[in-house]
Amino acid sequence: MRNIKGVVFDLYGTLYDVHSVAEQCEALVPGRGAEISALWRQKQLEYTWLRSLMNRYRPFEAITADALLHVCKRLSLPLVDSQRAELCDAYLQLKPFSDTAPTLRQLSALGLPIAILSNGSVHSISEVVQHSGLEAHFTHLISVERVQVFKPHGSAYELGVDILGARREDLLFVSSNAWDASGAKDFGYNVAWVNRGGTAFDELGVRPDFEISSLIEVPRFAAAQ
Amino acid sequence: MRNIKGVVFDLYGTLYDVHSVAEQCEALVPGRGAEISALWRQKQLEYTWLRSLMNRYRPFEAITADALLHVCKRLSLPLVDSQRAELCDAYLQLKPFSDTAPTLRQLSALGLPIAILSNGSVHSISEVVQHSGLEAHFTHLISVERVQVFKPHGSAYELGVDILGARREDLLFVSSNAWDASGAKDFGYNVAWVNRGGTAFDELGVRPDFEISSLIEVPRFAAAQ
Repeated sequence: MRNIKGVVFDLYGTLYDVHSVAEQCEALVPGRGAEISALWRQKQLEYTWLRSLMNRYRPFEAITADALLHVCKRLSLPLVDSQRAELCDAYLQLKPFSDTAPTLRQLSALGLPIAILSNGSVHSISEVVQHSGLEAHFTHLISVERVQVFKPHGSAYELGVDILGARREDLLFVSSNAWDASGAKDFGYNVAWVNRGGTAFDELGVRPDFEISSLIEVPRFAAAQ
Repeated sequence: MRNIKGVVFDLYGTLYDVHSVAEQCEALVPGRGAEISALWRQKQLEYTWLRSLMNRYRPFEAITADALLHVCKRLSLPLVDSQRAELCDAYLQLKPFSDTAPTLRQLSALGLPIAILSNGSVHSISEVVQHSGLEAHFTHLISVERVQVFKPHGSAYELGVDILGARREDLLFVSSNAWDASGAKDFGYNVAWVNRGGTAFDELGVRPDFEISSLIEVPRFAAAQ
């Protein structure tokens, strides 16, 4: 990898912590916050993949609400509509990981385009980024909304190439989600997989170019030209 | 629903119990059989969806082996290649549920075509069905292998219609998997969801026509013409 012309980040789970909503879940259903948050995330992802296969696109916020409704029914949680709405709102205010801001600052100093390419809608991405106060670091906020299909479909990854106007082999894609890193690698990006939890990569027939334990390692790939 | 001209069953989890491999898992890793079996099934399903979206079809047995390899790495299980192969072989000898044989016998007596439409390969489906001694009941064993994409993609459901030579609205599709029942309903079949565990249906924007707790209720839909 050389001559990197831009860095493309995944949002959910990579720059921002989806499990930061566990706190709000815990407040509403004491003792079960982590369980609810984990199943919610799992169903949210499943629904993006299943709907993409069924060709029934629906915006990410709506899928997030659907997934929470399912979790409430499945776990027999006594949440009323307004409480579910409150939890969904928390998804628009996710916390960045502690390594997110320092990494973005270092990358910004290098003068490269920095993009987010996310399953989130235009609205969701914008809300999350603005709430964290990090919007100035991004040159592009890219939503799959434009192609109405979720990652890891190739059309979603194509957006990064089209909008940054660079070849896929000149871009670095960064994700903590093994399935997303697999999709991006399959599409042809250079890929760094952020393995914060020390877990195993997915067995989907492709491997990331780099496995790192923190975002803070990203700038050195971009700088090593 | 009237004038049902055939019944199309899902295989894994509907006619045959995917968690019957938990016993073999337990024998190899005492105390963790259920945990391994559950994560194995989850990753197996994820990989079928992700590979379909990435347009990287791979036969079901190979995906099953990939998913087990991931589970072993993720849970740091000390299984060697031959032990993993043994577990994958167990997937070719899944046990039918207790309501499977009586249901098939009743349906056979009605003289309707009875099909399996499965994500499994031609080989997998044939092995499982023959091992259970139930092959005489099926007029068609249909694998998605022919279209190289997994359910819930529409092309997979189309196979049932094409091979049975009936209109989708004249067929009854039966599945225990909520995502599969959703895909079949979205495609246009009459759908019975077998909710053995009393769980919640998925929130994918469609509902099954019938929710039943056992396969034994299926023949009455086919007979009520």
